[in-house]
Amino acid sequence: MFRNGMPRYEILSGDAMATLDGGWRRLVSEIGVEFGNERALELFRQAGQKVEDDVVRFDPDFLLEQVAKAPRSFDIQARNPANTVHIGDDAMAFGAVYGPPFVREGEVRRDASMADFENFTKLSQSFSVLDSAGGIICEPENTPLDSRHLDMTFALQTLTDKIYMGNVVSGVNAADTIAMTEILFGGRETIEKTPATISLINCNSPLRWDERMLESQIAYSEANQAVVITPFILMGAMSPVTIPAALTQQIAEALTGIALSQLIRPGCPVVFGSFLSNIDMQSGSPCFGTPESAVGLLCTGQIARHFGLPVRSGGGMTSSQTTDAQAGYESLMTLMPTFLAGINWVMHSAGWLEGGLVAGYEKFVVDCQLLEMLQQEFTPLEIDEASLAFDAHDEVRHGGHFLGAAHTMERFRTCFYRPFLNSSDNYDRWMRNGAKDTSARAGDVARKKLDEYEPPPLDDAIRQELSEYVTRRRRELGD
Amino acid sequence: MFRNGMPRYEILSGDAMATLDGGWRRLVSEIGVEFGNERALELFRQAGQKVEDDVVRFDPDFLLEQVAKAPRSFDIQARNPANTVHIGDDAMAFGAVYGPPFVREGEVRRDASMADFENFTKLSQSFSVLDSAGGIICEPENTPLDSRHLDMTFALQTLTDKIYMGNVVSGVNAADTIAMTEILFGGRETIEKTPATISLINCNSPLRWDERMLESQIAYSEANQAVVITPFILMGAMSPVTIPAALTQQIAEALTGIALSQLIRPGCPVVFGSFLSNIDMQSGSPCFGTPESAVGLLCTGQIARHFGLPVRSGGGMTSSQTTDAQAGYESLMTLMPTFLAGINWVMHSAGWLEGGLVAGYEKFVVDCQLLEMLQQEFTPLEIDEASLAFDAHDEVRHGGHFLGAAHTMERFRTCFYRPFLNSSDNYDRWMRNGAKDTSARAGDVARKKLDEYEPPPLDDAIRQELSEYVTRRRRELGD
Repeated sequence: MFRNGMPRYEILSGDAMATLDGGWRRLVSEIGVEFGNERALELFRQAGQKVEDDVVRFDPDFLLEQVAKAPRSFDIQARNPANTVHIGDDAMAFGAVYGPPFVREGEVRRDASMADFENFTKLSQSFSVLDSAGGIICEPENTPLDSRHLDMTFALQTLTDKIYMGNVVSGVNAADTIAMTEILFGGRETIEKTPATISLINCNSPLRWDERMLESQIAYSEANQAVVITPFILMGAMSPVTIPAALTQQIAEALTGIALSQLIRPGCPVVFGSFLSNIDMQSGSPCFGTPESAVGLLCTGQIARHFGLPVRSGGGMTSSQTTDAQAGYESLMTLMPTFLAGINWVMHSAGWLEGGLVAGYEKFVVDCQLLEMLQQEFTPLEIDEASLAFDAHDEVRHGGHFLGAAHTMERFRTCFYRPFLNSSDNYDRWMRNGAKDTSARAGDVARKKLDEYEPPPLDDAIRQELSEYVTRRRRELGD
Repeated sequence: MFRNGMPRYEILSGDAMATLDGGWRRLVSEIGVEFGNERALELFRQAGQKVEDDVVRFDPDFLLEQVAKAPRSFDIQARNPANTVHIGDDAMAFGAVYGPPFVREGEVRRDASMADFENFTKLSQSFSVLDSAGGIICEPENTPLDSRHLDMTFALQTLTDKIYMGNVVSGVNAADTIAMTEILFGGRETIEKTPATISLINCNSPLRWDERMLESQIAYSEANQAVVITPFILMGAMSPVTIPAALTQQIAEALTGIALSQLIRPGCPVVFGSFLSNIDMQSGSPCFGTPESAVGLLCTGQIARHFGLPVRSGGGMTSSQTTDAQAGYESLMTLMPTFLAGINWVMHSAGWLEGGLVAGYEKFVVDCQLLEMLQQEFTPLEIDEASLAFDAHDEVRHGGHFLGAAHTMERFRTCFYRPFLNSSDNYDRWMRNGAKDTSARAGDVARKKLDEYEPPPLDDAIRQELSEYVTRRRRELGD
């Protein structure tokens, strides 16, 4: 997997960090955080925190004590051990878009189906730059709501041999995910030893954790499965309009959620999550790839490191409706800071369009291209005497060219990263090849990848057991 | 003008810098650099450097002594003093694309004309994010070659009141530019006191400075006009295929060119230039927005600061044929490192398409959008107690929204940067508005800006004098 050996780009001074530190401490102790779950409230009460109705007011140092129990980094095992992922340190893992109800393929925008879900899962398997298909890569709107999580989990388990995310719609769904994971990995003990799922727990920002998310969080943390505790902030709507206010709120929400996991099972794997952008204050629309979101992202990486926690943020996010120039630059406007900040778990890495409402086939391919370029860019240069190629200069001298130099001939196949999507064809050649823009070429790549897809091998008995579990549970859920 | 108050992203260790330092010293002393101009050779000979035929072998410390005479920063005056530009320190100045023989407007790609040149000059005047139209914003192919520089300079002087670049096709053209600049600014003395042009002197890399460029450089440096001494390197063709080798070559070329300017007129303004990307080793095509070019750019900023020189690099560069996703992300793949590296003079900031062969109307607008977003992003956050908006949290509390909060109402007009091109419209609204992609919207913006363009005021007598100069010189040049 990718390790980011380049320096972190940190923009918060010591004074700024101290001001933010004062800010979250005041928020958690004076305003407090609401938890819509009795067990959570009881755990905090027992731990000596002030609980009134659903609101918990915290001793900030108690939160830090809990947070200190969390591991700085951990592994998520994949059924193919080569695809096991490290979360934390200088590792960066990439998962596809999560949550869109719609898909876009060329000029067509339509409801997502289970066939789309399977296609995107196959694409995630095919692109080596991705570590995971994620979880709800799109909402398969043609499957029954109550049992959909079974179909999605089955697809993620069988069509890929990479890590996958757990369903969080309810505690029941979480339990199903865990049960199916036990089947795939050979029992509870092995997945408690090394977590095999990572799940997204979103805050109902500002400062409220909802019942169903908490049920899922509790189920996963009890099973030692990783949870990504994520303040969900579109500044102007779910937080004040200033970035520092959003950052302090984000810390307050993340640390309180993480503290809960550590009370449930000390030492269980957690990630400091961030979903941070802003709305357009005229229209109320969410905006992505904004300067404010990029600045927030850079700060978030630094803040999570300050607390000794792995961090989730970033991705290839855009408001654009199609895979056009805006989609390209807004996505990179988030992905570049994602690398600069050394984000460990990058959701929404591929396929995101239209503010997350749409999973795009062409966009998926574009984002994989961007990830490859950035992984190359964030691989440290080796600078030593040999790299200076003095002999090549001695051979070519003044005003010549290096195309045929011995140094070039030895290295020309691998010396530069070669993109699979970008065109540097001259105009005549590009015209002869159909004058296809990037989106059209990306569509071609997606179709070819799907044609060439081969499922990773899976033991028949395990597949059978998973299939039987899905059938039985679907019946029990009345679908 | 824009000041980049964010930290520099530096990726070269002390050891790496020392290795590069050894590299350029060996290049200039053992291989040497070729100068196709007798006066240059004579100046170096007089200064005690080893000259054999056209090749000068340098004492590296002599070069550093010359470089130390150059100013760390300087101003370029504009005829509207509000548009005077600072080159160096944390200032970043942006000029439009330079050199394309073709233009693209929508689906049409055609030879550039003088009308296009004027249009792009007007657009450069209209977008406040640009500090300059640059110089050869496109090659007006419908004007006579020998006198074209007069028409271009006249357009730059009259259609904008921003700084402009000098023509460098020959010493004659440079002299014409200087003469016209004397007319516009009221005499030689005022432009010698504060330079009023900045000109691009390209190396015929590797390690050769050509006659006509040197004639121009000498003319400009004698007149105390700024020159941007620029190694022109597509790695694999004009340099070895390794980035460190390209960097040492770049240092050798830049420092020797700069030393020449300092011998001509000690203390004259110079810029450490860089044009650094790579070719596709299969096709030989130049590639832009590559990981290698981004890494080279980050290193270049750090290297120029190491020598105490202002630095030119970066821009919105792409190989893409149209203003599509690739154009968006490749341009940002160069522009983002441009800001991270704190580049002082950013050529090719707007309009570049197809590897620099095409100036694109839509692309011009897209790039101005990117520059605005990046300027916002690279403006330091203010983090103080007030920015934490505790009162807003106290008002909204848990699970509410901040849309109507007092803190929001006070700030909603200015709290977030508002893009002029990006769409965050919901799907229905976007469809109702014609389902225009970014390129189509950018074309609308360009046409509107041209419709609304108003020329900046200019004294009639000066305009008359410039016009007469052009007419007389055109006649003398036989056109």
